[in-house]
Amino acid sequence: MPITHITRRERFSAAHKLAKEEWSDEQNMEVFGKCSNPNWHGHNYQLFVTVKGETEPSTGFVVDLSALGDLIKERVISKMDHKNLNLDVDFMKGKMTSTENIAIAIWDQLYEPIKSLGAELHKIMLQETENNYVEYYGE
Amino acid sequence: MPITHITRRERFSAAHKLAKEEWSDEQNMEVFGKCSNPNWHGHNYQLFVTVKGETEPSTGFVVDLSALGDLIKERVISKMDHKNLNLDVDFMKGKMTSTENIAIAIWDQLYEPIKSLGAELHKIMLQETENNYVEYYGE
Amino acid sequence: MPITHITRRERFSAAHKLAKEEWSDEQNMEVFGKCSNPNWHGHNYQLFVTVKGETEPSTGFVVDLSALGDLIKERVISKMDHKNLNLDVDFMKGKMTSTENIAIAIWDQLYEPIKSLGAELHKIMLQETENNYVEYYGE
Amino acid sequence: MPITHITRRERFSAAHKLAKEEWSDEQNMEVFGKCSNPNWHGHNYQLFVTVKGETEPSTGFVVDLSALGDLIKERVISKMDHKNLNLDVDFMKGKMTSTENIAIAIWDQLYEPIKSLGAELHKIMLQETENNYVEYYGE
Amino acid sequence: MPITHITRRERFSAAHKLAKEEWSDEQNMEVFGKCSNPNWHGHNYQLFVTVKGETEPSTGFVVDLSALGDLIKERVISKMDHKNLNLDVDFMKGKMTSTENIAIAIWDQLYEPIKSLGAELHKIMLQETENNYVEYYGE
Amino acid sequence: MPITHITRRERFSAAHKLAKEEWSDEQNMEVFGKCSNPNWHGHNYQLFVTVKGETEPSTGFVVDLSALGDLIKERVISKMDHKNLNLDVDFMKGKMTSTENIAIAIWDQLYEPIKSLGAELHKIMLQETENNYVEYYGE
Repeated sequence: MPITHITRRERFSAAHKLAKEEWSDEQNMEVFGKCSNPNWHGHNYQLFVTVKGETEPSTGFVVDLSALGDLIKERVISKMDHKNLNLDVDFMKGKMTSTENIAIAIWDQLYEPIKSLGAELHKIMLQETENNYVEYYGE
Repeated sequence: MPITHITRRERFSAAHKLAKEEWSDEQNMEVFGKCSNPNWHGHNYQLFVTVKGETEPSTGFVVDLSALGDLIKERVISKMDHKNLNLDVDFMKGKMTSTENIAIAIWDQLYEPIKSLGAELHKIMLQETENNYVEYYGE
Repeated sequence: MPITHITRRERFSAAHKLAKEEWSDEQNMEVFGKCSNPNWHGHNYQLFVTVKGETEPSTGFVVDLSALGDLIKERVISKMDHKNLNLDVDFMKGKMTSTENIAIAIWDQLYEPIKSLGAELHKIMLQETENNYVEYYGE
Repeated sequence: MPITHITRRERFSAAHKLAKEEWSDEQNMEVFGKCSNPNWHGHNYQLFVTVKGETEPSTGFVVDLSALGDLIKERVISKMDHKNLNLDVDFMKGKMTSTENIAIAIWDQLYEPIKSLGAELHKIMLQETENNYVEYYGE
Repeated sequence: MPITHITRRERFSAAHKLAKEEWSDEQNMEVFGKCSNPNWHGHNYQLFVTVKGETEPSTGFVVDLSALGDLIKERVISKMDHKNLNLDVDFMKGKMTSTENIAIAIWDQLYEPIKSLGAELHKIMLQETENNYVEYYGE
Repeated sequence: MPITHITRRERFSAAHKLAKEEWSDEQNMEVFGKCSNPNWHGHNYQLFVTVKGETEPSTGFVVDLSALGDLIKERVISKMDHKNLNLDVDFMKGKMTSTENIAIAIWDQLYEPIKSLGAELHKIMLQETENNYVEYYGE
């Protein structure tokens, strides 16, 4: 059967900052600039989850998109939307909340569950603003 | 010569449904949900056709984009725009009109004709709604 | 209190056609062009509902956006999404499903219920494709 | 001279929450839902500032757009971008940070300074997410 | 009959500059900045033409959108697309090609012809970049 | 350390034409169509620069996005924005200004400087209009 990639977009709005707790505000400002604002800032993140697999002949689906959407909502969106990524999200604890690290952490949240849908996670794409996004392929 | 990928977007608005003729409406609703509505629904599809090749030194082109656009219009858009994908499109006959299957069928429509333009089809990307799209590389 | 306008976007994907039942396919094609395809076509509609009112001092809201969203889903989206606008929608029965007429019908669906939220419907904006949209102010 | 409206878009990413300090977290959650998350959340706000005026014959301008952009950056963006709207912004102190209230406060920040550019502020449009935006005309 | 507004988008890609011929490059640079680059620059303009009228009962249309599109293409797009707005466009001769002036000139091109379609031109909206646009209502 | 791709978008508005100097206007029109308009035309180009690398553990960054943005502005945007790509840009001299060639030339401008930021250029994506874009991977 032909192999296709299918992508589902979900969104979340969250607060975060880039700062090391052991550094002073001045040191953080020097390295992370305005992203280290002590009182936080935030974004409308767009998350694109791409899975890969053979199309199932009777449905023409790689994966049931609605089941994939539910899984992303359960494992990621419900934990990140309208939250503080540094303080409220269990799987970000102790990590810098750079877009790179968030994308990697979302991969880890979704990789096994997507297998149980019969498909394979191919890529996490996470867009922080209209001017930047990160892609992670599990490498 | 350097190898580049160039992508042309075209659009079509079409009706379709996801349903097996041999199943009852209830069975179809159970598997395909609202996508199986007996009286059809529809989308504004966005089609992105990516071709790959060496840039021709005298023009700087991989392919004449306007010729590529005409070919896509002739082979795909004229047959799908303002049509019913299940009933009106010869190359979808007997197939589930999932986004995956439509993308694969469009690949088959375009692969050989694009060769005759001196380029190679690399990817079909088909976006059904702002929340989902399929990519097919002919694998 | 200051008066502001707040707009909520919702989306629905639907099939429709522009055709008079009492006309032949040829007559319909002459007047309505490809929009009259007998087997239907469809769109991803974007609906923007704008309400107007004084901001309530304790909340800073004109209206509870989430209640407004629920109301639009109940009165409009649940009846139009993944449906056939000509056949499946009670409040479009017997009407041409032009973007103009759909916008007017949605206004009528929402005007009174929005009043009961304590706000006033100001505008319905309905986008059929990226190249056209209709605005209706209840005039 | 003809009267035109010209609009400049600027953007800011900020944290905020909707909550009354004198209420418990539970009370706030009941009224403001997920927007009251105690540890904040955030958005990529898009701000559209529309000014109105006669076009100046020798330049064809209503206003020098680059001067307008600088003014918006100085009076609004530099104070809101990568900040906490509840804690860091002097002109939001003591106010609910609803989109409505932010738009009204931005109007007050810009009304007089835009006059000194020889134009008249006509509208503030502030988009919080792709699903909602507020318009304020100074009424 | 209800009155609706319907908008048609068309696009054109064009070169231009903002500069007075009787001034030196230095003087133009001082007033118009980088927009005065002697060798031109250019944009992908988006034109939104809004017409207003009663919906015609038998069709549900304010105006035949396809006829409106043809008219805009004939009177505006064919003269501006892939052209130099200062040198190639008859109806811009001797005018500063500010977005304001282009919008006003397009209004003048379309006002009477749209009347002959049985509708009334309501607004020209012209977007030069994603950060700025002009609206003109014929005032 | 995990390998991620991060992309930065920058924009420039420029004039250009596709034409061979040694050909007549008629010959150029025959091969390049409206893109050969002697008096130029122009576009709002969107440039997406993707770099690839290991995320640095203490920051969570592949590269300092703000430094990457500055580098793109210095090496590309300052030379192309509000310029004529055929006449004003040193690194395009003597080349056809096809989207393919511009993307390749931008790669050459950025490849070594990005190395000095500790990352590796992975892809240049250049969008000329909403209907076409080019990708170049340095092959």
